[in-house]
Amino acid sequence: MKPAIEELEAKGKAAKVASHRLAYLSAEVKNKALHNIANNLLAKKDEILDANKIDYKEAEASGMSAAMLDRLMLSPSRLESIAQDVLAVAALPDPVGEIFDMRTLPNGLQISRKRVPLGVIGTIYESRPNVTIDISILCLKSGNAIILRGGKEAIHSNSALARIVQEASVKAGVPDGAVQFIENTDRALVNHMLKMGDVIDLIIPRGGAGLIKFISENASMPVVAGGIGVCHTYVDQNADVNKAVAIAFNAKVQRPTVCNALDTLLVHVDVAERCLPLIAAEWAKAGVEMHGDKRSLSILKPHPGLKLVPATDEDWGKEFLSLVAAVKMVDSLDEALEHIERYGSGHSEAIITEDYPAAMRFLNEVDAACVYVNASTRFTDGGQFGLGAEVGISTQKMHARGPLGLKELTSYKWIIFGSGQVRP
Amino acid sequence: MKPAIEELEAKGKAAKVASHRLAYLSAEVKNKALHNIANNLLAKKDEILDANKIDYKEAEASGMSAAMLDRLMLSPSRLESIAQDVLAVAALPDPVGEIFDMRTLPNGLQISRKRVPLGVIGTIYESRPNVTIDISILCLKSGNAIILRGGKEAIHSNSALARIVQEASVKAGVPDGAVQFIENTDRALVNHMLKMGDVIDLIIPRGGAGLIKFISENASMPVVAGGIGVCHTYVDQNADVNKAVAIAFNAKVQRPTVCNALDTLLVHVDVAERCLPLIAAEWAKAGVEMHGDKRSLSILKPHPGLKLVPATDEDWGKEFLSLVAAVKMVDSLDEALEHIERYGSGHSEAIITEDYPAAMRFLNEVDAACVYVNASTRFTDGGQFGLGAEVGISTQKMHARGPLGLKELTSYKWIIFGSGQVRP
Repeated sequence: MKPAIEELEAKGKAAKVASHRLAYLSAEVKNKALHNIANNLLAKKDEILDANKIDYKEAEASGMSAAMLDRLMLSPSRLESIAQDVLAVAALPDPVGEIFDMRTLPNGLQISRKRVPLGVIGTIYESRPNVTIDISILCLKSGNAIILRGGKEAIHSNSALARIVQEASVKAGVPDGAVQFIENTDRALVNHMLKMGDVIDLIIPRGGAGLIKFISENASMPVVAGGIGVCHTYVDQNADVNKAVAIAFNAKVQRPTVCNALDTLLVHVDVAERCLPLIAAEWAKAGVEMHGDKRSLSILKPHPGLKLVPATDEDWGKEFLSLVAAVKMVDSLDEALEHIERYGSGHSEAIITEDYPAAMRFLNEVDAACVYVNASTRFTDGGQFGLGAEVGISTQKMHARGPLGLKELTSYKWIIFGSGQVRP
Repeated sequence: MKPAIEELEAKGKAAKVASHRLAYLSAEVKNKALHNIANNLLAKKDEILDANKIDYKEAEASGMSAAMLDRLMLSPSRLESIAQDVLAVAALPDPVGEIFDMRTLPNGLQISRKRVPLGVIGTIYESRPNVTIDISILCLKSGNAIILRGGKEAIHSNSALARIVQEASVKAGVPDGAVQFIENTDRALVNHMLKMGDVIDLIIPRGGAGLIKFISENASMPVVAGGIGVCHTYVDQNADVNKAVAIAFNAKVQRPTVCNALDTLLVHVDVAERCLPLIAAEWAKAGVEMHGDKRSLSILKPHPGLKLVPATDEDWGKEFLSLVAAVKMVDSLDEALEHIERYGSGHSEAIITEDYPAAMRFLNEVDAACVYVNASTRFTDGGQFGLGAEVGISTQKMHARGPLGLKELTSYKWIIFGSGQVRP
């Protein structure tokens, strides 16, 4: 283990050194690097797909689930779509160097804040090899050096992709060392990486809840903790039933495996009889299983395809990540707010209502990264929000909240232009 | 210990509950609370000063140093000045509720970020009782609940001040429980408090380097780590000598015990003979002890009052907090930048130069919270920067950097106004 740890330390130091020059690299060089990456993803397609085939076969042989295999698999069309994403990030404005809050003080000092990169970002991820590209390009574009540590299931794919990022970047003029990839998949290296707070400024975990929890609890540096979304949609007594049905359907069904999908539907008692059977009928078509409280179940009549299960206490506050939804009837907006405060994870919450005061109370009082009126929680996404791309969704309040785009991978420094001022 | 821990937990929960209502309290109520506090500081002057006398006598009897006793002591004029500070914060704009980055997406969703408080802020501090007021008013104004844990040397003073804050706030309509004070000074409670990440969103330590280090290393929640400033002033070869002398004097002498005071003076070899003797002569008048490298000492002639000591390796990167300065001659701007990168603490750094490219390189390349051209590092301060007041100075890059004012005690949430949108 010792040589592997020494190598990791050396990579950390190299990234730190590179980060100092990266911090003031021109947008031109960074964009050139991204263009090179996009080109090489296509030019070296065969090399990448060959590496991916090795991972895929090993994973298949080891009995990996079909869903996981699908995450692992690359194809020419997937590579093309990744290359498109790279070009989209290249086209975004460079967040670094933005000067804001500039003003002249009475003593003549001109002070302002200047946006700068964070420094070195470490990422620890599981089986999706596209994370290698996603995180690398967002870090490079925002002027951060990067240490990539992917899962062993995708080691060959990640290695090929990281090599492309490295070569393409250096060719564009990005300082050597800015992109570090850890080949060794020993778990002990993750533990060591989490203690390297002197060189790594931020850790971004990408993967399941277990990985995120482990990293949040063990990292000595800040971690973008998020990715866990227990999302509620509350159908208010004054909801437009058509909107409620369409939004509940979209939030649960459009992509049930992600963090911004609906987990619990709260329905006001006064609208439940009109609304809940319609939602249930739509959900039944998609195969959604409903875990309902007594009152909800009492108004749902058996119906082909309807899967009704009595809810248990564990259903409240559960992230299902599948075609399952908890359903609860509430007597008031207050009860809905209390339920969300108690069980929500601070990710995305929505109210469906035509009532102005109810909408405004919900927006004011719900304490979550994203609070919606009359829209699907599925919109919580950097791309959808117009941030261009995201490294994740933060449910913390410090630094940045919600989708983390390029700007959220930066800090600022105060720059002060003086002409000899001293403090009286 | 168990009942004390239970009481602490109960206070934490009460603060959390209060924080939900505090989050959307009107600026009017919060400002009223601050006005009440300012009034009561004067109306209950005798009560406060009596409590302070008990602390002072006990501290004196226990052999506390004169400097520490001075920090502990309150007087009518100090109370008046604290009350003025409270009114100044009341007069600042309320950061909470600010809507920014609002835009309408192509699908008609209106999205924006809305500034919200962090929640519950814990503060752990040492002997200055004014911190009780400082932190309380900044937290209240920014809509945060607060848990105060002061040092045992000032327990009577802190207790009297906290009571004033509590009574004045509740009378204004601030929810009961928003200001919590821990009477028990057992150290074990600090350890427990640092594990209360479920209720405390941020910890602000105020005190010496030992306290800050202990808290940073042991807290399970984010900590405003800062307060340590190893500050360099670099006199460039093209410096205006008069500015260099005035700034070096001010940065070292005006208040040597604070984090933004000069620690190391770097002087370019080409300007050293003209500049260093003048700086040394001024510093000599104030009793500054210079720890110089060989080359600096070689050009400084003995002079009444001049205290010259050969520098050792430990002088570089040391925060002196007293009338001591390390002095080093450098051959180039590059060498100065390297020295600062190696030994700086990321707090405040200054260049004295009339050379435009040198100034711009310094501003670009120095990685610190505050980077100055031709001004004293002593300006790093929330009040001086026009932020109104500060809870501390952050040398971290996450969340906020430099002086932390009201805005830096907030987060934001995304609010999204829809009209039935679903994700395609």
